[in-house]
Amino acid sequence: MPVETHRINVKTRGDSQVLDLTPQLAEVLAGADIADGIATLFVVGSTAGITTTEYEPGLVNHDLKHYFNKFAPEDAPYRHEETWHDDNGHAHVRASLLGPSLTVPFVDRRPTLGTWQQVVLIDFDTRPRTREVVIQLIGE
Amino acid sequence: MPVETHRINVKTRGDSQVLDLTPQLAEVLAGADIADGIATLFVVGSTAGITTTEYEPGLVNHDLKHYFNKFAPEDAPYRHEETWHDDNGHAHVRASLLGPSLTVPFVDRRPTLGTWQQVVLIDFDTRPRTREVVIQLIGE
Amino acid sequence: MPVETHRINVKTRGDSQVLDLTPQLAEVLAGADIADGIATLFVVGSTAGITTTEYEPGLVNHDLKHYFNKFAPEDAPYRHEETWHDDNGHAHVRASLLGPSLTVPFVDRRPTLGTWQQVVLIDFDTRPRTREVVIQLIGE
Repeated sequence: MPVETHRINVKTRGDSQVLDLTPQLAEVLAGADIADGIATLFVVGSTAGITTTEYEPGLVNHDLKHYFNKFAPEDAPYRHEETWHDDNGHAHVRASLLGPSLTVPFVDRRPTLGTWQQVVLIDFDTRPRTREVVIQLIGE
Repeated sequence: MPVETHRINVKTRGDSQVLDLTPQLAEVLAGADIADGIATLFVVGSTAGITTTEYEPGLVNHDLKHYFNKFAPEDAPYRHEETWHDDNGHAHVRASLLGPSLTVPFVDRRPTLGTWQQVVLIDFDTRPRTREVVIQLIGE
Repeated sequence: MPVETHRINVKTRGDSQVLDLTPQLAEVLAGADIADGIATLFVVGSTAGITTTEYEPGLVNHDLKHYFNKFAPEDAPYRHEETWHDDNGHAHVRASLLGPSLTVPFVDRRPTLGTWQQVVLIDFDTRPRTREVVIQLIGE
């Protein structure tokens, strides 16, 4: 059964920035040999996660960050930071909660997303990063 | 490699209702040409999510809703609501946290669930909806 | 398309213990007939979940448990506990939030994890358990 493994790199600002990966997913699918199957998006690293949301400014620039910060506050103490003497304990906790991967079915090379549903990466780290995302297609 | 894409529609009441999708998954698998592989369940839209839970009244009718409401309260202000002048900002935040998809292995056309583990859709929206769920099977 | 279904058992202490499953995943992949594809890890049962994290003592022995306990406290009342007269309502709520499965792409029989990114099981139950985890490979 065919497998296609693609890798993309995206630059982020960190600080819970939400990036729309739907255009990159659409581009990978448009050029794929596989027409029907599942796309697994997997972010390499343990301070970012992948999910879906409606990509509009209120959610993307404020609400998602606000509630993740309520769950694991940036200014709280973390034992992780004692281990490494760094400042991104909250980023690790949020990323583990959200999870690094998302599976999206596709049919005729199009993901089965809703109109107001985009695939997003949230980078919780405290500094700008270049993130590698694996987009792997399996199907027929 | 064979792929089978099924789509089901379920009516919900919204308001963090938890619906058991295990019977529908079992029915799809029972009639499938594929005996072993993974089932990806994906809800179309950005105000609902999919996970597993023990489908018993305490969790389903109270506890899950209570703790999602603690995380992202229904009556808090959301910038999303300023964008659209609607009232479902909390539904979007909860849905992004939970995620729209679940992957479940199956063997001999049966999902590898525990006895007290059911696949559920949680609809966080503020009104009744008809939800489309893609159930895609990949395997042999 | 080839499918390989493996099952492993791991002993846990419960109480939000975080276990590194990366060695078991690596072992399954090293002996697999499939070189490229996705590995789905699925924990059987509704009081544990699977994600990734940096497996270091601060996060693993303290931070993750602390923030899951903040989300769904161990000592809060749960309707689930009224149903069964038990004490693990918080374990169910946390497990549903985290989710029972994770999909990880692999290439040349190696998972596409980061250097400081490990696959972990978190067992939220209130007592030691032996957990069954399905590791299913699909690919070519």
